[in-house]
Amino acid sequence: MKQAQTAIRPTREENYPEWYQEVIKASDMAELSPVRGCMVIKPWGYALWENITRIMDDMFKATGVRNAYFPLFIPINFLEKEAQHVEGFAKECAVVTHHKLEKNEDGALVPAGKLTEPLIVRPTSETIIGDSFSKWIKSYRDLPVLINQWANVVRWEMRTRIFLRTSEFLWQEGHTAHATRQEAIDRTHMMLNLYKKVVQEYMAMPVIIGEKTPAEKFPGAETTTCIEAMMQDKKALQAGTSHFLGQNFARASDITFQTPQETEDYVWTTSWGVSTRLIGGLIMTHSDDNGIVLPPRIASAHVVLMPIIRSEKDRETVMGYTDALAARLREKCYYHRPINVEVDTRNTGARNWDWIKKGVPLRVEIGPKDIEKDSVFVGRRDRDPKDKIAIQKDEFIATIGDILDDIQQALFDRALAFREANTCVIDDINTFDAFFTPKNKEKPEIHGGFALAHWCGKEACEASIKDRLNVSIRCVPFEAENESGKCIECGEKSRKRVVFAKAY
Amino acid sequence: MKQAQTAIRPTREENYPEWYQEVIKASDMAELSPVRGCMVIKPWGYALWENITRIMDDMFKATGVRNAYFPLFIPINFLEKEAQHVEGFAKECAVVTHHKLEKNEDGALVPAGKLTEPLIVRPTSETIIGDSFSKWIKSYRDLPVLINQWANVVRWEMRTRIFLRTSEFLWQEGHTAHATRQEAIDRTHMMLNLYKKVVQEYMAMPVIIGEKTPAEKFPGAETTTCIEAMMQDKKALQAGTSHFLGQNFARASDITFQTPQETEDYVWTTSWGVSTRLIGGLIMTHSDDNGIVLPPRIASAHVVLMPIIRSEKDRETVMGYTDALAARLREKCYYHRPINVEVDTRNTGARNWDWIKKGVPLRVEIGPKDIEKDSVFVGRRDRDPKDKIAIQKDEFIATIGDILDDIQQALFDRALAFREANTCVIDDINTFDAFFTPKNKEKPEIHGGFALAHWCGKEACEASIKDRLNVSIRCVPFEAENESGKCIECGEKSRKRVVFAKAY
Repeated sequence: MKQAQTAIRPTREENYPEWYQEVIKASDMAELSPVRGCMVIKPWGYALWENITRIMDDMFKATGVRNAYFPLFIPINFLEKEAQHVEGFAKECAVVTHHKLEKNEDGALVPAGKLTEPLIVRPTSETIIGDSFSKWIKSYRDLPVLINQWANVVRWEMRTRIFLRTSEFLWQEGHTAHATRQEAIDRTHMMLNLYKKVVQEYMAMPVIIGEKTPAEKFPGAETTTCIEAMMQDKKALQAGTSHFLGQNFARASDITFQTPQETEDYVWTTSWGVSTRLIGGLIMTHSDDNGIVLPPRIASAHVVLMPIIRSEKDRETVMGYTDALAARLREKCYYHRPINVEVDTRNTGARNWDWIKKGVPLRVEIGPKDIEKDSVFVGRRDRDPKDKIAIQKDEFIATIGDILDDIQQALFDRALAFREANTCVIDDINTFDAFFTPKNKEKPEIHGGFALAHWCGKEACEASIKDRLNVSIRCVPFEAENESGKCIECGEKSRKRVVFAKAY
Repeated sequence: MKQAQTAIRPTREENYPEWYQEVIKASDMAELSPVRGCMVIKPWGYALWENITRIMDDMFKATGVRNAYFPLFIPINFLEKEAQHVEGFAKECAVVTHHKLEKNEDGALVPAGKLTEPLIVRPTSETIIGDSFSKWIKSYRDLPVLINQWANVVRWEMRTRIFLRTSEFLWQEGHTAHATRQEAIDRTHMMLNLYKKVVQEYMAMPVIIGEKTPAEKFPGAETTTCIEAMMQDKKALQAGTSHFLGQNFARASDITFQTPQETEDYVWTTSWGVSTRLIGGLIMTHSDDNGIVLPPRIASAHVVLMPIIRSEKDRETVMGYTDALAARLREKCYYHRPINVEVDTRNTGARNWDWIKKGVPLRVEIGPKDIEKDSVFVGRRDRDPKDKIAIQKDEFIATIGDILDDIQQALFDRALAFREANTCVIDDINTFDAFFTPKNKEKPEIHGGFALAHWCGKEACEASIKDRLNVSIRCVPFEAENESGKCIECGEKSRKRVVFAKAY
């Protein structure tokens, strides 16, 4: 039997979906719970979410947004107020129908205390927040209202995949109300660009920004804008969305205001959100066949110190040296937060590989021989596990920020190069179909990647491609230039290329 | 009709429960939602919660605790595993029975997709976290496990009161597992003392720490320890609890480990929590007949600047001076966070009173005459609204931390003096009954306060007092010295005084 060359089996090449499950398991980030479709986010995974929330929260606040909290439960009649919205969410919501449990004749606990009106667990909060807005907003002087909520939401998914699609997930949902259409549109774009910044600069995930087609937009939105990333199986992941809701939800929730001209009008609203799904995207973008790879700016920890104690006589020297190094590193900041140092004193062979699988950016071995030379032995997670180099300790402390930045940049560059290598401009329907058709039926996930192709704007063409190839329009990119062409499906006039891809 | 002398009507004296509702309304901190028993926490109230969470989270982490996240839903059979636990929570839990909505013949949306096993929305997470612990823990080397979760929980309350008792509330719940009984007991006390520190040092609320009686403890706990505070209506509020769970939940969830001696044993667990109820306690401790009073170390904002612009020619000077002052204040820190400055440019009479009602510690007026003298006009929230003094601007900037500390101390001292003035040592049952019997039937909330009285330890005496007077034993205080005496109810031997009070 051939020895496994990598820490994770199967590899990405062998079986990408299983590799994803195994990578997460090996990293100790999260696991499925006994509750259908719900996950347990373990400390190593939750620390990532904490880093994301702190970075975003500060940025939100810098734009004038304040946090608030709204009820977990939504009365059914609230959902019904917006026709598309209820269509979009009624099929996948958890419904609370009773408010206590009682023992039946057999001694089993059964629901009791039936509610007059059932409640649903929020799948998103436009309608319940809209109700508050309708009370808070009277005049143009009350506008804009800029609110964000960090919360859990539930969408009953039949096919779940940890982080990417779970029945319960954590997210933030921003909700704003404005006096003018333009101001609301500007806010929609401001938040989308903020997402792009966090995802690119901190998570090292290159994204395409653009607008969803009418068929793909949020139920009830006038327009949905999004950031789309390419995973290592060349599928697209929607990593964040920002919706311009027009006056739809204002009408549904009766959110009116008195204008400066003393007329009455509906406000213009937006909503925007990212979720724990981002963690799934991060894993699928950077990780390799040895496990998770965490970009330094968002990593749960920046560096792990591994003292090597071969005999008891070395213990005091090695531990003293290690603790002193940890203390000096912790005094430093990298990208607005203190360097987070783990010290792993286990003297086992598994230790080094455990940290590789967890994706910590830097692994530092400290043994008696290194101490003699006042140097440390450093491995970078973006390089081969065997490529370790000795660095003078003081130099390591002085340059750790530069090394981390170098890793950060390398991860971004690698992800961008991968996306570019797997993005094709396609003008011919046969090439297009071949691009998306798996060559190997056993590995249906293997296909071409992103196709930049012309689309006439008709929903029929979009639907026909989706039916045939399970490929959707991920977005109409903002950054693409106008260009005359012919729709890939029907050959009619088109003015812009859109991004076609298979998607999570 | 007599002119109102205070900003809030009714006053505490006139109608305490209604005063509480009015104070919250006037402060814009929170409101009841259209969903029965659930609240909307508005930005001014949520900022308090954010401050509490940041302070506590840092302290938790300093003791080795890490955050994680567990499912919102709990299968009914999990709850049933611990007999007392299910007794305690079955009567008040939201039950999810369906996973979608469908239109019936009348076109109305009704629950559909019935679940095989209903789920309850977590009222607390011992059982679902216990399930994870049973998978995570194999050996003594895996211990201790120190986990915290920031989450929403639901307990279906029939009589709700904003912040104090709501069907949904926000909280943190710590859950730890240990190899020995003593280590778990030590952790229980460590976290209780941490709560005491935050509540006393940051929230300026004096608390009594002690142990609950068996009748009052958490369902499933071996012992429950707590911090108890006195509100201004002399009732007690349980402000936080820390439970030593013994091996009860370990048995229920089968959490075993291999000891160093290679035997198998159940782990010892603890759980501990504080919730948004703390905000209700804060309000009831410090606020007055003019509204909320926020202790500086936890305040949503430390200071509000109110530029006074009487004519347009002053605008540029006054706003320039105000913005420069705001910038200099924001560069400073007070108690580990930057000074949070609000600038209110509304030139209305309501402005000053709005900020009094919101409880901001310092109000600063800046008019052309003050600017000429390079001074500012400062009002402190702990003093009479009319007591405002001129301070040289540079001196104000230099000493703002001292002023805030002085307010912080004054609030704590005032609350402590109030509690001491309303705590009586009572040894006679007639005095005891009179102490707790309202003199005026129209104001049943008016009574004596805390009674320190002897109790024999029998549940019958405790129950009899509760039935007769609606008074419970808040705790057996740790700090009280042993003292021989006779039970206030039955006259039998007692070794310690306990705290009797009416309670929220």
